[in-house]
Amino acid sequence: MGKGRLEAFTDGVMAIIITIMVLEIKVPHGTDLAAFSSSLPILFTYALSFLNVGIFWNNHHHMLHAATRVDGKVLWANLFLLFWLSLIPFVIRWIDETHFEALPIASYGIVLAMASIGYHWLQQAIVAAHGGKSMLAVAVGRDVKGKLSMALYIGAIGLSFLNQWIALCIYVAVALIWLVPDRRIEAFAKKE
Amino acid sequence: MGKGRLEAFTDGVMAIIITIMVLEIKVPHGTDLAAFSSSLPILFTYALSFLNVGIFWNNHHHMLHAATRVDGKVLWANLFLLFWLSLIPFVIRWIDETHFEALPIASYGIVLAMASIGYHWLQQAIVAAHGGKSMLAVAVGRDVKGKLSMALYIGAIGLSFLNQWIALCIYVAVALIWLVPDRRIEAFAKKE
Amino acid sequence: MGKGRLEAFTDGVMAIIITIMVLEIKVPHGTDLAAFSSSLPILFTYALSFLNVGIFWNNHHHMLHAATRVDGKVLWANLFLLFWLSLIPFVIRWIDETHFEALPIASYGIVLAMASIGYHWLQQAIVAAHGGKSMLAVAVGRDVKGKLSMALYIGAIGLSFLNQWIALCIYVAVALIWLVPDRRIEAFAKKE
Amino acid sequence: MGKGRLEAFTDGVMAIIITIMVLEIKVPHGTDLAAFSSSLPILFTYALSFLNVGIFWNNHHHMLHAATRVDGKVLWANLFLLFWLSLIPFVIRWIDETHFEALPIASYGIVLAMASIGYHWLQQAIVAAHGGKSMLAVAVGRDVKGKLSMALYIGAIGLSFLNQWIALCIYVAVALIWLVPDRRIEAFAKKE
Repeated sequence: MGKGRLEAFTDGVMAIIITIMVLEIKVPHGTDLAAFSSSLPILFTYALSFLNVGIFWNNHHHMLHAATRVDGKVLWANLFLLFWLSLIPFVIRWIDETHFEALPIASYGIVLAMASIGYHWLQQAIVAAHGGKSMLAVAVGRDVKGKLSMALYIGAIGLSFLNQWIALCIYVAVALIWLVPDRRIEAFAKKE
Repeated sequence: MGKGRLEAFTDGVMAIIITIMVLEIKVPHGTDLAAFSSSLPILFTYALSFLNVGIFWNNHHHMLHAATRVDGKVLWANLFLLFWLSLIPFVIRWIDETHFEALPIASYGIVLAMASIGYHWLQQAIVAAHGGKSMLAVAVGRDVKGKLSMALYIGAIGLSFLNQWIALCIYVAVALIWLVPDRRIEAFAKKE
Repeated sequence: MGKGRLEAFTDGVMAIIITIMVLEIKVPHGTDLAAFSSSLPILFTYALSFLNVGIFWNNHHHMLHAATRVDGKVLWANLFLLFWLSLIPFVIRWIDETHFEALPIASYGIVLAMASIGYHWLQQAIVAAHGGKSMLAVAVGRDVKGKLSMALYIGAIGLSFLNQWIALCIYVAVALIWLVPDRRIEAFAKKE
Repeated sequence: MGKGRLEAFTDGVMAIIITIMVLEIKVPHGTDLAAFSSSLPILFTYALSFLNVGIFWNNHHHMLHAATRVDGKVLWANLFLLFWLSLIPFVIRWIDETHFEALPIASYGIVLAMASIGYHWLQQAIVAAHGGKSMLAVAVGRDVKGKLSMALYIGAIGLSFLNQWIALCIYVAVALIWLVPDRRIEAFAKKE
């Protein structure tokens, strides 16, 4: 089974998610700087979400580039990942309408954590399709960054009920960890 | 006529349908667990619809993968399928705004039943384009799952006026039947 | 310059237009048959618009399939076509919110007429890129269907101020004329 | 690393941006010519934005066509460009809801200026990936049009607090400068 159409569908869904998020946030209620300033937190959350979807796309791009075949399990793991990413615009709207309360901020972490689990599952499914001793399996290795992200998200979900701004800071920290593209697979791609 | 652009257009439309559904559902009206709980039925319907579109995409992917040519009839059957799928977000919004009443739930079944008919028509058109004795015709066979789905949908449409939750359970059951990718065509693809 | 990315961008835009139209129409205001019935005219307009965009996509598909090269003029003509198609969801919303008044119905005709002019311009630009004596030029011929459509649209625009339902009937008639894919170019593609 | 998926993702995002802008503008509040006339400024802004995204797509198309490889920096520069383009629908909605006040019009210029900076950064990243003496580097040259656009946008941002219509005129002027596709790279593509 070819990977081309999986990539095309994923690109489509991610391109739409990253673009329709902007439909979900309210414009400033006036045209003075005060009105604009009160929109800054949600615009910042939008930018963070844009970055997060961009990171998922970027890593997906690298991983699929190194893959040579996909099977049924890969398709379903990919759909699971896309499902959770598709909830990002929904959570952003909830955050915007309820002004950064604890539960919506925690939900944002849950959605990102589930998407990370989906990505991890997808990675496992792709590695399994290539064999445990394939270069892709070696390249993925122990996936320290992936496991660290999940641990941080789980911590942030709990912390958001204490102080939601700490949770937001952790979400930003996880994004910064991933800003650098996955050098393991990039190195693998170069060796190839 | 190449199948590439048909796949690309279908991927695009399905990717958009699966993603914009989330724009149609209302966020919880508060930030406590009670508000979130009252959103669970529509979130569940969203997840079911995401799964349904994912199943259609998955089967479409498998069928087109096995196809080698498309003609005008295939294009129109495909457009008919996409038309009914495009109404899923509309029905979800109706269900959400009217709180799971009988007619919207029945309409959800009608839309899925018409999409199934569209998929069946597309299958027939593709088989016809390849000849009645082609391996694709053999692989599709009697299409038991397709016919069973349509029968279940028609039953659910009627039952939704008795009890809409029974109808929803049947919609879930049909999705579970299809969760497994179409082994007939997958087997065919392997033989090839 | 390759035609691949022009096709991909056009497929993307048309896939989005055909899918987001459904976001623009209001769901029935109740869950009884009376509420549903009052939504039938706009649902019918939605179906007609879906068909119209499908026809443009289908003809675009055929024409580009026969084309071997595109230039800057083709890109701009294509963008002009997409601009007018992108206004279809806007006009549908206007029709829905104002209940089928004369000016919105006339505007629907203006948008379709301008899109037809855009398609004609695109056709001219593609033929010009292939030379006046190319097989594509022969295949397009006098473009009777294209000119007839434009004449009918212009007539319908005027008539919609007399009776908007007559205008709608003409829009349906034009769609029916085009339902058959462009046999001229299909015949050309077969000869090739 | 292949440029194909970068092009596909960019095409997807730009196709969505150019199409969903129409969801952001309000339809006329009536069906007479007066109601329609009062919508003309926002429809004009929509057309200008459609043209601007079209220009970015067109230039992106030309530049990537001439490119033979992309790296991580190109991916991030591209994402930065797409981020700012994705804010265009947001600013249009703000302009529409607040009736062409100074700050929203200035924000429109900021978004376009940041997108231009993103495009410039992308151009630099692509040239760097091909080497400073590559034909692509020669083709891009001193990028007079890019620098002129940025200067005009910065001027317009300041002027919009004096008179927002002057700023809008400058935005139109910049679009007209770019209407002609980038002949430098087109010439380069021909030489190749």
